[in-house]
Amino acid sequence: MKIADSIHEFSKIVLITRATEEYYSLIYSKFPKAVYNKEAEMILIDSRKRQKLIDGLTVLSAGTSDIPIAEQVVFTAEAMGCKTNKIYDIGIAGLQRITNKLEKIRDAKILVVVAGMDGALPTVISGLVSVPVIAVPTSIGYGSTFEGVSALLTMINGCSPGVSVVGIDNGFGAGYTAALTLHSLMK
Amino acid sequence: MKIADSIHEFSKIVLITRATEEYYSLIYSKFPKAVYNKEAEMILIDSRKRQKLIDGLTVLSAGTSDIPIAEQVVFTAEAMGCKTNKIYDIGIAGLQRITNKLEKIRDAKILVVVAGMDGALPTVISGLVSVPVIAVPTSIGYGSTFEGVSALLTMINGCSPGVSVVGIDNGFGAGYTAALTLHSLMK
Amino acid sequence: MKIADSIHEFSKIVLITRATEEYYSLIYSKFPKAVYNKEAEMILIDSRKRQKLIDGLTVLSAGTSDIPIAEQVVFTAEAMGCKTNKIYDIGIAGLQRITNKLEKIRDAKILVVVAGMDGALPTVISGLVSVPVIAVPTSIGYGSTFEGVSALLTMINGCSPGVSVVGIDNGFGAGYTAALTLHSLMK
Amino acid sequence: MKIADSIHEFSKIVLITRATEEYYSLIYSKFPKAVYNKEAEMILIDSRKRQKLIDGLTVLSAGTSDIPIAEQVVFTAEAMGCKTNKIYDIGIAGLQRITNKLEKIRDAKILVVVAGMDGALPTVISGLVSVPVIAVPTSIGYGSTFEGVSALLTMINGCSPGVSVVGIDNGFGAGYTAALTLHSLMK
Amino acid sequence: MKIADSIHEFSKIVLITRATEEYYSLIYSKFPKAVYNKEAEMILIDSRKRQKLIDGLTVLSAGTSDIPIAEQVVFTAEAMGCKTNKIYDIGIAGLQRITNKLEKIRDAKILVVVAGMDGALPTVISGLVSVPVIAVPTSIGYGSTFEGVSALLTMINGCSPGVSVVGIDNGFGAGYTAALTLHSLMK
Amino acid sequence: MKIADSIHEFSKIVLITRATEEYYSLIYSKFPKAVYNKEAEMILIDSRKRQKLIDGLTVLSAGTSDIPIAEQVVFTAEAMGCKTNKIYDIGIAGLQRITNKLEKIRDAKILVVVAGMDGALPTVISGLVSVPVIAVPTSIGYGSTFEGVSALLTMINGCSPGVSVVGIDNGFGAGYTAALTLHSLMK
Amino acid sequence: MKIADSIHEFSKIVLITRATEEYYSLIYSKFPKAVYNKEAEMILIDSRKRQKLIDGLTVLSAGTSDIPIAEQVVFTAEAMGCKTNKIYDIGIAGLQRITNKLEKIRDAKILVVVAGMDGALPTVISGLVSVPVIAVPTSIGYGSTFEGVSALLTMINGCSPGVSVVGIDNGFGAGYTAALTLHSLMK
Amino acid sequence: MKIADSIHEFSKIVLITRATEEYYSLIYSKFPKAVYNKEAEMILIDSRKRQKLIDGLTVLSAGTSDIPIAEQVVFTAEAMGCKTNKIYDIGIAGLQRITNKLEKIRDAKILVVVAGMDGALPTVISGLVSVPVIAVPTSIGYGSTFEGVSALLTMINGCSPGVSVVGIDNGFGAGYTAALTLHSLMK
Repeated sequence: MKIADSIHEFSKIVLITRATEEYYSLIYSKFPKAVYNKEAEMILIDSRKRQKLIDGLTVLSAGTSDIPIAEQVVFTAEAMGCKTNKIYDIGIAGLQRITNKLEKIRDAKILVVVAGMDGALPTVISGLVSVPVIAVPTSIGYGSTFEGVSALLTMINGCSPGVSVVGIDNGFGAGYTAALTLHSLMK
Repeated sequence: MKIADSIHEFSKIVLITRATEEYYSLIYSKFPKAVYNKEAEMILIDSRKRQKLIDGLTVLSAGTSDIPIAEQVVFTAEAMGCKTNKIYDIGIAGLQRITNKLEKIRDAKILVVVAGMDGALPTVISGLVSVPVIAVPTSIGYGSTFEGVSALLTMINGCSPGVSVVGIDNGFGAGYTAALTLHSLMK
Repeated sequence: MKIADSIHEFSKIVLITRATEEYYSLIYSKFPKAVYNKEAEMILIDSRKRQKLIDGLTVLSAGTSDIPIAEQVVFTAEAMGCKTNKIYDIGIAGLQRITNKLEKIRDAKILVVVAGMDGALPTVISGLVSVPVIAVPTSIGYGSTFEGVSALLTMINGCSPGVSVVGIDNGFGAGYTAALTLHSLMK
Repeated sequence: MKIADSIHEFSKIVLITRATEEYYSLIYSKFPKAVYNKEAEMILIDSRKRQKLIDGLTVLSAGTSDIPIAEQVVFTAEAMGCKTNKIYDIGIAGLQRITNKLEKIRDAKILVVVAGMDGALPTVISGLVSVPVIAVPTSIGYGSTFEGVSALLTMINGCSPGVSVVGIDNGFGAGYTAALTLHSLMK
Repeated sequence: MKIADSIHEFSKIVLITRATEEYYSLIYSKFPKAVYNKEAEMILIDSRKRQKLIDGLTVLSAGTSDIPIAEQVVFTAEAMGCKTNKIYDIGIAGLQRITNKLEKIRDAKILVVVAGMDGALPTVISGLVSVPVIAVPTSIGYGSTFEGVSALLTMINGCSPGVSVVGIDNGFGAGYTAALTLHSLMK
Repeated sequence: MKIADSIHEFSKIVLITRATEEYYSLIYSKFPKAVYNKEAEMILIDSRKRQKLIDGLTVLSAGTSDIPIAEQVVFTAEAMGCKTNKIYDIGIAGLQRITNKLEKIRDAKILVVVAGMDGALPTVISGLVSVPVIAVPTSIGYGSTFEGVSALLTMINGCSPGVSVVGIDNGFGAGYTAALTLHSLMK
Repeated sequence: MKIADSIHEFSKIVLITRATEEYYSLIYSKFPKAVYNKEAEMILIDSRKRQKLIDGLTVLSAGTSDIPIAEQVVFTAEAMGCKTNKIYDIGIAGLQRITNKLEKIRDAKILVVVAGMDGALPTVISGLVSVPVIAVPTSIGYGSTFEGVSALLTMINGCSPGVSVVGIDNGFGAGYTAALTLHSLMK
Repeated sequence: MKIADSIHEFSKIVLITRATEEYYSLIYSKFPKAVYNKEAEMILIDSRKRQKLIDGLTVLSAGTSDIPIAEQVVFTAEAMGCKTNKIYDIGIAGLQRITNKLEKIRDAKILVVVAGMDGALPTVISGLVSVPVIAVPTSIGYGSTFEGVSALLTMINGCSPGVSVVGIDNGFGAGYTAALTLHSLMK
């Protein structure tokens, strides 16, 4: 809380990761503008005037258990002024779920794809679109997934060349990079 | 050669892996029935009467560089009395190549899928069929594929439950297991 | 529970893994047909008419601690319409236990072999039979087993060619693949 | 060569990686439009009309030995219609080389940063700019760099959130992703 | 406690690591000279006459979460008769924080630099000074930092040649080595 | 050669590993007592009076490719005054080869078992005897054996408690330890 | 308890590892001959007539935290009829503690050396004696010891050839192997 | 050569690593002051006036094969104005070689210890002296040394607190750090 406090003196926008609901209560009592996303476990304190949102980001996730990380992406990108579309729960073991949403996926200017287990979704998606894909490996899963390392390796080695990767469970980093890209290139 | 020789005394069929063309010349001069598959680098000496072939195996491979291992699968399975169909060069970064061949793929009773790099093809295929898939990771590729370990991990962790995996570059093992399955279950 | 519910609308059979006894109570109050296997920690809700079971699968396990995973194999295969035989607690450090059961083992059309620690049982069994073996590494054990990775490596590298492998502790996957194989090849 | 040939029938642009000078001679005798970059070991056959180049990409590299991969980035991005600036040989052990070029670095809309050894350059650069950084780990180096794995881990774990990463030595992938980004967002 | 007791019979100075506050209460009731540093979780029992402190050590740390390890360095070095300066919370993603403190950093005769995550700070600092740097990787962080291994690899592979490294989270070892160096070379 | 020379001044017995045939020619021209084992690539120069050999060591190896390492064991143990029996080429995938030799195996007082690939032979053998087993993993094999690491892990984790292990391909160490054991305990 | 019970029907000696004090109470109420070693966490139920103990085993351990594993060695070897000497707490960072005990160490016919952290003690000891050394790596320690893997590697790679190694924390295996060796060779 | 040339314009001292004899001939023809150390594979071009050498560094190495790296340390430190003592070929498997040289070792103000295989020498030495030790792991060795990683882990985990470590085979870095330390602390 001391951290959030002191950061706020210097900046009109503060983004806190790994925040529990209890922590949010404390923050909220001091900063009534603070907004909480329970799934992403993130808090935003935004004292700026309302900006116009930039369009173009779509966030995809493979399994139900990847949604918290996907929500991190969305929450971060929106805090940075981007409007996002969400397409959750489309895995590579059921291709028709992907093809059903293909038109909507192709509407995006940049995609963030969140996946654990085998981590093959970003490669499949990238082969179907002509926009850049930022891949987020997640640590969720069991067996020999090695807490996300298996997904990370798959993504780094994917044979579709338009994919770049962030750290395991780093939804914040992916949302930040996507938003930075939209801002940088649209100015 | 001494090995091939002595094995042949006990068995009417001999299968040699990692055979160079020069080695084949030596074998051939002694066993004119010996047959060579250059891509698979394998030799078959078969002194049995012609058997009726069992149908039902289809072999898929992801990239051009995976073909030698796919040929090992085919050569081994045929030596063991199975007829095989081949569908090569269908990767997950170009899904339409898969969907174009889907009917043919679904005709099989058992599939062997050979893939390197990200190794995601067996999971995708398994999600589209209702037959067992034997996956073969290959060591071909560069960067952070770690000589097939990345593909092996993807296959072991794939989220489609009908997949089992053999060792890296072990086309012989996959062909042998597939043929054993067809023989065991059709008797 | 919401998941089980919604799946059930679309399907006459639902299989839930990692289910606690408490969770079963909840499910059971709503679906009186739900059946629970405590060791496998799995629930089956099967609204289909009784089918005739397919014969031919035998499940072996190496140690007492591997039984929960072996039970997952059995429960899954039976849910998918297969009759299974069980031979538990036969390790490679006591070969006579294997040879005593050899006739029974050879009766099967397909074998699933569950083993942790050194993971050598599938290779030994495969050398004694002429049917395919699906190997399941388990994470149980201590010392330098690295939570099943040691067993996984042994199985992937076993020198008997009729073995294929599923992920660590993935009894569900092994049972599913075995049942799929019996169904695919017997139709 | 057969590959280049057949691809060329379908496409007005062909990009070949890992091409030796001898291979280029062969290609050139058939496709006089083929252009070769010796350091990147790449060939481009471009039969399109001259397009107007998109501006905004700057490529940085840490050491002399990273230049071939940096040249891959440049060659690929230019083949895809992007104009690139190059800033080579600026490492984190000599910060003044970075600060001297800071204004030029900040001119870019997107940066690709190539680095081996400790792989810390992308994090340092990202902290100094407000545009996205695509990081490329290289396998060059000795000692405990583990053929680029050390650099890959540093980049994936960098504490500056605007960085995403491609595979080891994958200059082609980084150039492709950067060009895709510029095209997608500027249309 | 028995350990501290028996060591004290032989030595006028005892340093205890990983000490909880409760443990300190016990020690203190017996050795009123015992001093506790809560962040470093260390206790010092020093029965020597006050010595004159040696000057020249500065301790830097990258993030807030690295401070406990940095405090270990300081507490150990001071127990061994060295005066230390502290410069905490200067990371490579914000270079101006480093350049602001550069004069103070250059005053040191030996530096200990504590960092987790990407672990690049020691290399950057070493490039700016002409004194030896002892680097301490920390296990704090998440994602793919592998409990400090990523930082350790970066430090071991850093391209600035004046850096040597101690074990992960081994602030005690770094403080001890730094103090030993000052004592050895100033006598 | 200088090394062999100077060692010989101090000792009546010299054992050289990794010796080529050419190197042996050089050694032999100077030390006519030098004896060479081509498969083990070792040279022995023994100027001692003929000692009486100690009985009790049997060396087993799994595959043809493990024989050079097994020969190292034999050559080393014989140089140290032990008589050895050899039983080569008995793998776990063909148990009858083991049971055929069981009586001979049980005659030993100590066993050295050499195996690559899955490395399960020492565990199987240990379960059949009541004498200690020294296991030697070998780097021979392909696919995912990781140059012997897979065999090493299997041996270290074997569930039969009478097994201890030496380094990969370290036939010299195993022979030395076995001979040391026989000497130490029989004096 | 059921296990201990059923084993006891077949065998006059039962050895239970990982036994808590509570578990011992249960066992003791049923088998008043049961003996407990709290540090080793092991129980022995021995219904045999008192045998004469075999002499010759000495157990060394490096640090205080290695003692439980050393006690496992002792307890196991004594259960198997061997008399043991113990020399605890002699590390390589204080050589005089080793040289003080050297005569006593050299009295043994076989040594078991237990060590964690760097794991170098077995190599040092082996260089000072002419008897076989069985090394036991322990998982105790912190930082980059990787739960005993570092000690295991050191022991496997030690440059003194009379050392063989058992699994991490496997004091039972080391005691069993040592006792087996004494029995096998002294009969 | 172009590199050496251009560096020389800016600096009165140039140090080239990994230099072959042929390369030295080229350098020498242009810079007659160039000095070559064949074992270290390094060239020094020193145009400064002769400085007075600083005393206090001793370099130890464990095996014959570690000498080239030890020579790198010496050559680098001498180029930087330090006088060095050398004590080569003292391994931990023969402690008397260490104790024979102990007085000479204790004369140093700072020690560099070079070792491969098990890498335990720096810990042993550090326990015998009261000066800092810089440890250099080497990649020389075979079996499971993993090209120096095993030695690196041992050194990082050594239980003597006065040791810090540089990268595998990085004799240059160790010599540089040692010289930097002597200069920094003696001014």
